[in-house]
Amino acid sequence: MNSERLIYLPLGGAGEIGMNCYVYGYGAPGEERLIVVDLGVTFPDMDSTPGVDLIFPDIAWLEERADRIEGIFITHAHEDHVGAVGHLWSRLRAPVHARVFTAHHARRKMEEQGGDPKAVVVANVWPDTVEAGPFKVGFLPVSHSIPESSGLVIDTPAGRVIHTGDFKIDMAPGVGEPFDRELWASVSKQGVLALVCDSTNVFSSHEGRSESSVGPEIRRLVAEQEGMVVATTFASNVARVKTLAEAGIAAGRSVCLLGRAMRRMIEASVSTGVLSDFPTTVSPEEAREIPRDDLMLIVTGSQGERRAASAQLSRGKYLGLKLSDGDTFLFSSKTIPGNERGVIRIMNAFSEMGVDVVDDDDGRYHVSGHANRPDLKAMHELVRPQAVIPMHGEHRHLREHVKLAKSLGRTAVLAPNGTCVSLSGNKPEVVDFVETGRTYLDGAVQIGAMDGVVRDRIRMALNGHVIVTLIMDEDDTPLGDPWVELMGLPETGRSGTALTDVLEADLAQMLGRANDKTLIDDDKLDEALRRTARQSCLNEIGRKPEVSVVVSRLS
Amino acid sequence: MNSERLIYLPLGGAGEIGMNCYVYGYGAPGEERLIVVDLGVTFPDMDSTPGVDLIFPDIAWLEERADRIEGIFITHAHEDHVGAVGHLWSRLRAPVHARVFTAHHARRKMEEQGGDPKAVVVANVWPDTVEAGPFKVGFLPVSHSIPESSGLVIDTPAGRVIHTGDFKIDMAPGVGEPFDRELWASVSKQGVLALVCDSTNVFSSHEGRSESSVGPEIRRLVAEQEGMVVATTFASNVARVKTLAEAGIAAGRSVCLLGRAMRRMIEASVSTGVLSDFPTTVSPEEAREIPRDDLMLIVTGSQGERRAASAQLSRGKYLGLKLSDGDTFLFSSKTIPGNERGVIRIMNAFSEMGVDVVDDDDGRYHVSGHANRPDLKAMHELVRPQAVIPMHGEHRHLREHVKLAKSLGRTAVLAPNGTCVSLSGNKPEVVDFVETGRTYLDGAVQIGAMDGVVRDRIRMALNGHVIVTLIMDEDDTPLGDPWVELMGLPETGRSGTALTDVLEADLAQMLGRANDKTLIDDDKLDEALRRTARQSCLNEIGRKPEVSVVVSRLS
Repeated sequence: MNSERLIYLPLGGAGEIGMNCYVYGYGAPGEERLIVVDLGVTFPDMDSTPGVDLIFPDIAWLEERADRIEGIFITHAHEDHVGAVGHLWSRLRAPVHARVFTAHHARRKMEEQGGDPKAVVVANVWPDTVEAGPFKVGFLPVSHSIPESSGLVIDTPAGRVIHTGDFKIDMAPGVGEPFDRELWASVSKQGVLALVCDSTNVFSSHEGRSESSVGPEIRRLVAEQEGMVVATTFASNVARVKTLAEAGIAAGRSVCLLGRAMRRMIEASVSTGVLSDFPTTVSPEEAREIPRDDLMLIVTGSQGERRAASAQLSRGKYLGLKLSDGDTFLFSSKTIPGNERGVIRIMNAFSEMGVDVVDDDDGRYHVSGHANRPDLKAMHELVRPQAVIPMHGEHRHLREHVKLAKSLGRTAVLAPNGTCVSLSGNKPEVVDFVETGRTYLDGAVQIGAMDGVVRDRIRMALNGHVIVTLIMDEDDTPLGDPWVELMGLPETGRSGTALTDVLEADLAQMLGRANDKTLIDDDKLDEALRRTARQSCLNEIGRKPEVSVVVSRLS
Repeated sequence: MNSERLIYLPLGGAGEIGMNCYVYGYGAPGEERLIVVDLGVTFPDMDSTPGVDLIFPDIAWLEERADRIEGIFITHAHEDHVGAVGHLWSRLRAPVHARVFTAHHARRKMEEQGGDPKAVVVANVWPDTVEAGPFKVGFLPVSHSIPESSGLVIDTPAGRVIHTGDFKIDMAPGVGEPFDRELWASVSKQGVLALVCDSTNVFSSHEGRSESSVGPEIRRLVAEQEGMVVATTFASNVARVKTLAEAGIAAGRSVCLLGRAMRRMIEASVSTGVLSDFPTTVSPEEAREIPRDDLMLIVTGSQGERRAASAQLSRGKYLGLKLSDGDTFLFSSKTIPGNERGVIRIMNAFSEMGVDVVDDDDGRYHVSGHANRPDLKAMHELVRPQAVIPMHGEHRHLREHVKLAKSLGRTAVLAPNGTCVSLSGNKPEVVDFVETGRTYLDGAVQIGAMDGVVRDRIRMALNGHVIVTLIMDEDDTPLGDPWVELMGLPETGRSGTALTDVLEADLAQMLGRANDKTLIDDDKLDEALRRTARQSCLNEIGRKPEVSVVVSRLS
């Protein structure tokens, strides 16, 4: 009897770049034992999620099955893979497995959110494995843009799955393990049911470049500058931070790290042993005393984040340090789509100070951490799986990756979030669709993306907000006139009279004509006031605002 | 006596890409007669201008001197040059000069906003000139990405200025005049005081490419596709629309234009004679009856605009037409920074329909309409001005353009918005700074960027909005408890109790303790209620919202 099956179910990360969360299950249908791969966040934006602090995958499906979760495996320490561990773990309560550097971050996140840091277990790399119910999971070192990234070798009674995690094929990543082709070939030799594979750069048709290729360019640039040099990159790209720091030292400059994330990441790298030879740095206090021609700052905020060091410096003095005419600012990073406005704002602010801004328009000072199309092909060839399942991409990336795999003669499955794929038959088969979604961290509260809270914020931002208050006396007649407050609306409109006055007059007039049926019925009265206020605004300012009506009855 | 001077003053467009508005003046200081070059708009975004419809330069400075304005000259029909004519003209009331195609657009804008279309005067090209007080202005044809773009030859008693307008050096622009090197050399021969020059692409170091270079690539792509082909580009890029249409016809397809802006632009081009041989198109009704393999749509919405045809198609059926599996969608355009999210949303929606999306990642299907760095150099060499004044760019573009000009041995002046430069001395000199800014079209109303209206909207979007209402009786004691309404806030917080209940209880408690001094003083009572509501929210949901307080006194 073969009623047991192996399933793959992405809850996040397959349909967006961000909030990765993939589930594997093995067992009788509906009774599978589960493991979770990654618990990441995605970042909000003003267009669609104003006021939100972080976005998580909706793990309702997992929470209902928490008793069947054998373990949570974190592939690497990027926020889109580990960022939700602290926030969501208490709803799942399974052991969290990660390599030492990643575990360090996971533990800190547990501590910050009141979770249990002891739930985080440090894993050794393959050939060691972690037993988790019917699963045996091995951490397979892989090159990416953060130390100790790992693919996972997931062994099950149905066979082996390889989950690449985020990866590139880099033989000289600077910090961390080079890509080990033989190791990846060796785990693939016995036959692999499915390669669940990073899709981020499937549209990049050129050969991927090694992290080490930017070193000479950065050293040359830093050496050529007079004035202070300031560079930013992703804080987690420890190899890049090291390259930048070494370029500073080579140019005879003292190096100062600015920004909490940057310092934390380097400290974590040193304390966990993934980084052993980082140059000596100076503190911001020391940096203030060093002539600017002899100084290099390495700062957070490559994405234009408003509170990061780069943005602070673009607004003026930060920790006593200030850029000025003749200085150079290097973005050793790419701008993630959607962050352009913030980055450009900073570039122009620096330009106004007389600072030369160097960005990565031509790819000289940055390389991606993800496998380009030729390297994806190479991975397919190396693993030779029965099927490729693209993950870690927007829908268009997943779809293109499926096309790529098929063009190479492989079976491939398009499985966006919520698609439950059985991997244990002759070929992968979509067996179910699960409802998925997003949860917002909003201040201290987790809210559902469909709760309407954010929708109301967007409406207020687009339309403004009118508040109408009215007191009704014991006889259900208005006590005085209605009162109007405005928020986010012009003071005057077409008539030149104050908008509040126009609204209050229109509302009073409407009430004067309203019959008793309207006046005694809360819903009708509310609706009449709202409709009048909206119509009055439309006449006066050409737009219908959001309206809140508060009727107080003294009866 | 030489007390008269020639001044240049940008009010918009020098410090951003958008809302171009440049002023030239000639006369005794403070009494200069003025001409205005371009009156454009810029487009709002959710990050900084939610709810705003359009953004104009603040023309207060001009309005105060309206009696001194001799004319308004529009270089070409892009919205960032002509878009504000209808909205702002009534405050300036000077004749508007433009070539026939541009004048067509300017008139329509006048009609739409209740201005006087007769104020728009059609100008002939150089060597004809328009006399405007002490100025003689000639329209000098130049290649760009819209028909009939023009530079301006501005002759004054102090000498000649050349204002490039937006331009590229394109010998085969498809529609409109090729760049005429000899013409530009001939107007420069007599000596040019200043070249006021487009800076948009100063960071693009490669040679500019001709509009005609995309034709073969587009034809090949369209010919290779099965299924329906849909292409989008900037509606105003008439040459590109023609290239796309011709590619469709060459592939044996019927061509249908979708989107009002697209049809209008082609109609205007035909009616003004700038376009004579556009292929026959079919209506959407006819298109519905044509097999999809034989059909090509050319649609608006290359920037992901939510109401444009491409976005409508990405959401489903539009005018009875619908994309499906096997169709191809081509972005023959670049994504303007800040529009990435909207464009990516559409790409993924198409991907979910099984549509292959082709974009311009590699520059095959789009070329820029602006001069790259080598072509800017060529323009400097051609005109050989006494000074270069960069315009049409963010601060970083202007600054880089100044550096470029200086590296070529020229005098150059960095003159962002509000910088008044005298051009009549031996060399240009900054003589004044004028306060500049932005005006928002908000529904039917023009509001100042600093009025606080948009700031309040952003705050509501980020923080949510609490409305507290309270009735005070004749004795200045609360009549019942305060009442709370929420907008854009979670229903429950840490305690698990409804947030409104928590707030109302905290507010009632505060009122119970409040002394008479607070209760009788509107400001104090308001402030106490606000502070309590904010603190209560902070405790409960971890954030301080915007609070509106409405106290009604029955006394």
